[in-house]
Amino acid sequence: MTRRLGIDVGGTKCLGVVVDDGVEEPDDIVAQARQPTPYDPDELLDVLSEMVHGLTIEAGAVETVGVGAPGLITLEGVLRSSPNVPDVVDLDIATRLGERLGRPVTVGNDATCAALAEWRVGAGRGHDDVLMVTLGTGIGGGVVSGGRLVVGSNGFAGEFGHMVVDPNGPPCPCGRRGCWERYASGSGLAQLARTAAVGGRLRRVVQVAGGDVTLLRGEHVQAAAEEGDEGALAVIDEFARWVALGLVNLTNAFDPAIFVLGGGLAEGSHLYLEPIERWFSELLYAPEHRPHPALSFATLGEHAGAIGAALLPTTRF
Amino acid sequence: MTRRLGIDVGGTKCLGVVVDDGVEEPDDIVAQARQPTPYDPDELLDVLSEMVHGLTIEAGAVETVGVGAPGLITLEGVLRSSPNVPDVVDLDIATRLGERLGRPVTVGNDATCAALAEWRVGAGRGHDDVLMVTLGTGIGGGVVSGGRLVVGSNGFAGEFGHMVVDPNGPPCPCGRRGCWERYASGSGLAQLARTAAVGGRLRRVVQVAGGDVTLLRGEHVQAAAEEGDEGALAVIDEFARWVALGLVNLTNAFDPAIFVLGGGLAEGSHLYLEPIERWFSELLYAPEHRPHPALSFATLGEHAGAIGAALLPTTRF
Repeated sequence: MTRRLGIDVGGTKCLGVVVDDGVEEPDDIVAQARQPTPYDPDELLDVLSEMVHGLTIEAGAVETVGVGAPGLITLEGVLRSSPNVPDVVDLDIATRLGERLGRPVTVGNDATCAALAEWRVGAGRGHDDVLMVTLGTGIGGGVVSGGRLVVGSNGFAGEFGHMVVDPNGPPCPCGRRGCWERYASGSGLAQLARTAAVGGRLRRVVQVAGGDVTLLRGEHVQAAAEEGDEGALAVIDEFARWVALGLVNLTNAFDPAIFVLGGGLAEGSHLYLEPIERWFSELLYAPEHRPHPALSFATLGEHAGAIGAALLPTTRF
Repeated sequence: MTRRLGIDVGGTKCLGVVVDDGVEEPDDIVAQARQPTPYDPDELLDVLSEMVHGLTIEAGAVETVGVGAPGLITLEGVLRSSPNVPDVVDLDIATRLGERLGRPVTVGNDATCAALAEWRVGAGRGHDDVLMVTLGTGIGGGVVSGGRLVVGSNGFAGEFGHMVVDPNGPPCPCGRRGCWERYASGSGLAQLARTAAVGGRLRRVVQVAGGDVTLLRGEHVQAAAEEGDEGALAVIDEFARWVALGLVNLTNAFDPAIFVLGGGLAEGSHLYLEPIERWFSELLYAPEHRPHPALSFATLGEHAGAIGAALLPTTRF
């Protein structure tokens, strides 16, 4: 059986997998490994190289090696800039890792890899028009349109997080204001919660967080919402409205058959699905004249990026 | 020579052309005709049918017939809903016009047709990733990605005008607030001008418009800007910022090699290009780490939609 190796370079850890060619189920992962992500470029290449060696010792020879990394990754596999790995700029991962390994390496954006995996193996299977949106610390994305992965002219398509949804909104580390990920990400949820807490509307959530408003995180809102706390549910609803607003914008642009929502927020999916769908219908243009895209949550969990990286070398753009 | 017929159904007029197969220049239009657009569905089909007959009498037999129409057009050629032709809903143009003509008819969105034409024959020629944005009364759009026309799962891709860029912005006829076309269209420019005029900052423009602030239109701002009027140039700059904001959002989503700006606003292109490019660089994420898409103005003028409609039947999605 032909096997393919993929590594997902995350903000904190690198996760590598070996999958069978023609992988159809997450269970087809035949080997996996993880390592902390070093921020130094040379150390990062060392770690990736070691992971490839370790995984091929464990799983046997592999046909291809793919890497998914956060940020702007060119079609040639150069990481131009990444908010999550700030010291790594203009790093030619494909060439330099390829030299260390003595074999070709294909490199793509991590969320694009996750989209590829969810489309081929996960929640988007069977659809030709799939938008993957990863709601984590920030927001990433990947696009499948007309049965093909869309990467854009430089490889930078799908950077949904920096879509401006309010030019007077809070400043974003990217230098602009009111980017979608300031509202609809994990940190956006935390910020909505802190604003509500300062207004005195979140007593239970603040309690769950240990009494300190500045320490409020998305998990605390989720935990209180699970208990049915009204203040927490109101914050979830506000958050869902921001998520839906962005999904509507993306629907106007891409007209997908299905959204696959991934990232850390997918954990509490049962809390979000109903309010996101409700707001989506509220905000969509001409909702009565069109089918609505399906809203689903990712099924490959933390493995999506690595599985997609493994599939990338044989994917036609 | 094989010939193809296309008709663009506009908000006020229908424009039909016959082009040679393999059309490469706007000059390859071998016949054209125009008629006012009736708002009654049956009369519209009558007009389209008459135009096809008239054009084939003039130009000889044609191999295919295509129609571009505004609004949500399904892949089967049904007009679901159109803001510009409000009385026409759920009209199966492809089937009903096909029956009248006794031949197959392919129907698509008008801005998608314009994108196809500008990509194959006009300003986007030679690029594989082209975004067409039509800045008219509203904003339409069309997408070419990876060398293929992107239409989405229902045919509704490219509806850029209703991308929300400010959820607290002015109400839009679509039912939401702060849609991009409230700012970056012809009516958006007029609204920005009226706001500035009420603030007393546009004396020359109001003079050009005949002294009545409520009658201010985009053309008046353009005319005063041509004279170098500072107030008018400031409104153009504000307008350019809104245009750029949306183009940046679309760059994050699609990563195009080139934008082709069309619609009525393309007329004053020399006024807009520099400020739009300046704001684009200001607003883009990581501008120093990436090539910027080219900004260009459409070259096919009012014929883009009809030429694209003619090319549609032989285009693979």
